[in-house]
Amino acid sequence: MASEFTHLDETGAARMVDVSGKDVGARAAVATGRVLLSAEAVALLRSGEVPKGDALGVARIAGIMGAKRTPDLIPLCHPIALHGVKVTLDVEDQGVAITCRVKTADRTGVEMEALTAVSVAALALIDMVKAVDPAAAITDVRVEEKTGGKTGHWTRP
Amino acid sequence: MASEFTHLDETGAARMVDVSGKDVGARAAVATGRVLLSAEAVALLRSGEVPKGDALGVARIAGIMGAKRTPDLIPLCHPIALHGVKVTLDVEDQGVAITCRVKTADRTGVEMEALTAVSVAALALIDMVKAVDPAAAITDVRVEEKTGGKTGHWTRP
Amino acid sequence: MASEFTHLDETGAARMVDVSGKDVGARAAVATGRVLLSAEAVALLRSGEVPKGDALGVARIAGIMGAKRTPDLIPLCHPIALHGVKVTLDVEDQGVAITCRVKTADRTGVEMEALTAVSVAALALIDMVKAVDPAAAITDVRVEEKTGGKTGHWTRP
Amino acid sequence: MASEFTHLDETGAARMVDVSGKDVGARAAVATGRVLLSAEAVALLRSGEVPKGDALGVARIAGIMGAKRTPDLIPLCHPIALHGVKVTLDVEDQGVAITCRVKTADRTGVEMEALTAVSVAALALIDMVKAVDPAAAITDVRVEEKTGGKTGHWTRP
Amino acid sequence: MASEFTHLDETGAARMVDVSGKDVGARAAVATGRVLLSAEAVALLRSGEVPKGDALGVARIAGIMGAKRTPDLIPLCHPIALHGVKVTLDVEDQGVAITCRVKTADRTGVEMEALTAVSVAALALIDMVKAVDPAAAITDVRVEEKTGGKTGHWTRP
Amino acid sequence: MASEFTHLDETGAARMVDVSGKDVGARAAVATGRVLLSAEAVALLRSGEVPKGDALGVARIAGIMGAKRTPDLIPLCHPIALHGVKVTLDVEDQGVAITCRVKTADRTGVEMEALTAVSVAALALIDMVKAVDPAAAITDVRVEEKTGGKTGHWTRP
Repeated sequence: MASEFTHLDETGAARMVDVSGKDVGARAAVATGRVLLSAEAVALLRSGEVPKGDALGVARIAGIMGAKRTPDLIPLCHPIALHGVKVTLDVEDQGVAITCRVKTADRTGVEMEALTAVSVAALALIDMVKAVDPAAAITDVRVEEKTGGKTGHWTRP
Repeated sequence: MASEFTHLDETGAARMVDVSGKDVGARAAVATGRVLLSAEAVALLRSGEVPKGDALGVARIAGIMGAKRTPDLIPLCHPIALHGVKVTLDVEDQGVAITCRVKTADRTGVEMEALTAVSVAALALIDMVKAVDPAAAITDVRVEEKTGGKTGHWTRP
Repeated sequence: MASEFTHLDETGAARMVDVSGKDVGARAAVATGRVLLSAEAVALLRSGEVPKGDALGVARIAGIMGAKRTPDLIPLCHPIALHGVKVTLDVEDQGVAITCRVKTADRTGVEMEALTAVSVAALALIDMVKAVDPAAAITDVRVEEKTGGKTGHWTRP
Repeated sequence: MASEFTHLDETGAARMVDVSGKDVGARAAVATGRVLLSAEAVALLRSGEVPKGDALGVARIAGIMGAKRTPDLIPLCHPIALHGVKVTLDVEDQGVAITCRVKTADRTGVEMEALTAVSVAALALIDMVKAVDPAAAITDVRVEEKTGGKTGHWTRP
Repeated sequence: MASEFTHLDETGAARMVDVSGKDVGARAAVATGRVLLSAEAVALLRSGEVPKGDALGVARIAGIMGAKRTPDLIPLCHPIALHGVKVTLDVEDQGVAITCRVKTADRTGVEMEALTAVSVAALALIDMVKAVDPAAAITDVRVEEKTGGKTGHWTRP
Repeated sequence: MASEFTHLDETGAARMVDVSGKDVGARAAVATGRVLLSAEAVALLRSGEVPKGDALGVARIAGIMGAKRTPDLIPLCHPIALHGVKVTLDVEDQGVAITCRVKTADRTGVEMEALTAVSVAALALIDMVKAVDPAAAITDVRVEEKTGGKTGHWTRP
């Protein structure tokens, strides 16, 4: 039944769902999100006056490492192999757009890994700019596309 | 200079800022965020027809544990003591509102811990409902209030 | 030779045993354990007077997450995939009975994961009740059943 | 009120209890436990015929490292400093007796750290002997003594 | 092109390289390293006067556990299965020689796991002897041999 | 007695040494190390032809994060606060020189944290260049200077 929370059993108790019966297959997911920043913080990220060597780099690496920590953070996520993780950060007028693509060949989808990577990259970016912009906010963290598995290709409606 | 990224040195290289000179003192932070859900997912969370024992509980615990993992996830965060963490989830018409309050007595603020707790709780909630609502999104993750330290009391403008 | 500690080489040095030659196959294990509690703590867990929303839920989730941390905790355990983890807690007159079932399809058995889940769930439960019952004890943590692998089906004699 | 679960708030929701108001002070705890083993496994641990260099050493080190992982494993435990951890394993006729002593100077007691160290040492020992004795069991894991903090000196009744 | 850093994309941004197209196959790596110690520290390690039960054992176990932590430590390493890890420490006149052999059957090589195991074993050994020899140094940590994968058998020239 | 391994008790068993009696005070350590690279790899790191945005940045961040993981990796290290971590990488003719400075105010020194940061930065750098230079080696990882604590100021002889 599509309307049930699959992570809960019939008594409402949490469980790691048994995926033994699922096929191993190529799966991928794309998630995106944005960090809304003040004009000053955006100008600083774009400016040539302040060295920014690692500014976006720290967030990108935090995102990639965050993808690997997904089963440690999300209680019911299966520990799975990850075959590729790419995190992109684009400075825009209102802040920074983050995109993460994750690939695997395993028994479960990787949308949680992609969402976690975007979230951790966003958190690390906020940590970088918080002295300049304490009001920075994370918004629109969501799955855009998902391929593989029984449900096949899903794109955000 | 307020306009510099304090986590970067003069060459743009990332560093964990030296806080030896900061005073140990009571500090607290409140962060909030929301998970936007479909009407079906909200109805399911509110409905009595499906047992939901652990549905919100998993997210709450994931958030509390996430606060403790902050220095593991955010590259330049200092490992600090945490003296209290509270995560609240409220089911609303559009989804679930999440609030986290963190307290400590240490040399750095705890707004990153509060933001991380909200983000991880939100991710865990999405993991719970994703079979029902694959389009769930995290939005408005931000610091609302911060007390203690040199900057004193800050509230979101 | 059955009487050797397989985790030690011929000089007595610890090693992670080479399982390259073992077949990938479906494997499962069931472990159980009990937390002995005072009558007051049991009554509190059963009582409707005190809200207990997360009381057993925290222990259940800690157990599931503990199963995933097994290779981090047990020095010579192989990092393996987990395909399903279920932790059950039943309040009984003398305390709480804990059962964990773990499934995988990999090269090693999952009895250590099941035992670790039971132990961590038990520890988390003690943490919940320790203000009420500082004398709580964990007992009878053991493998009940194990299937898959070269040794096939094993049940506790 | 002594009869409440301090880790749950008035709605039954789990929280990391605020210990800001507690004094920093010297605290210590002793926990014990036993691993019940077959006569064959005990004989092997005592025998000089098989090199056992790391047999007990692996369990001892796993226990010490386990103490440090307590806040990662137990959802509501505070991350605290540890000033000393000692794990002792004694081979007895029925198995192995484990004792752990933990010291700190912080705002919370360390009985959960001591119990976790005993449990992880016991699990690691079972992992070492499981090919010889698949029926090994952990029993009697409990706090023996606790000093420091508001409650002062507590010994197992 | 052999001269490119495969972990960077065409813009210089770090990524976890996509290995979906690589074959799963048996792979192995051997890495070595040395800890240079004072004559006093070497004599102590060799002497029968001071009990040294766990001296080398701690380093050996730290190395094995370190191999498992490789994807947590090295930002762009893939999380992979490990099928066997062996760490050897030999006391020599100038210090201690460390060798690690790692085996797997996965899509990437295991030389980083072998190097990490050697490094962590070396660090743990220095931690053991640092009160006696604060000038201890790690040297010559390097891959000696690597088999499996597209590049086949590689031995240090 | 200076000639004893402080991490072993009188029976040779490993322990986390009790530092309760040590004073909390400002402590710092500097460690260095080098990664020896082929001329081709050095030229690539220096060349403007290949984008190298994150090449050294990944290693720098891995080092900083590695410092925070020290108590997880080194079995007998105390979990302590870190107040500042700085990792510097300089490309030289023979490879890359790495320096790490760590500061704290706690009961134990931070030389292990500094050594771990250098080692992990070196491992991450090797991971970046290994496709170009499979023979890269880590050498001369050692403490240069240490201040604070009972032993006061120590500099490498």
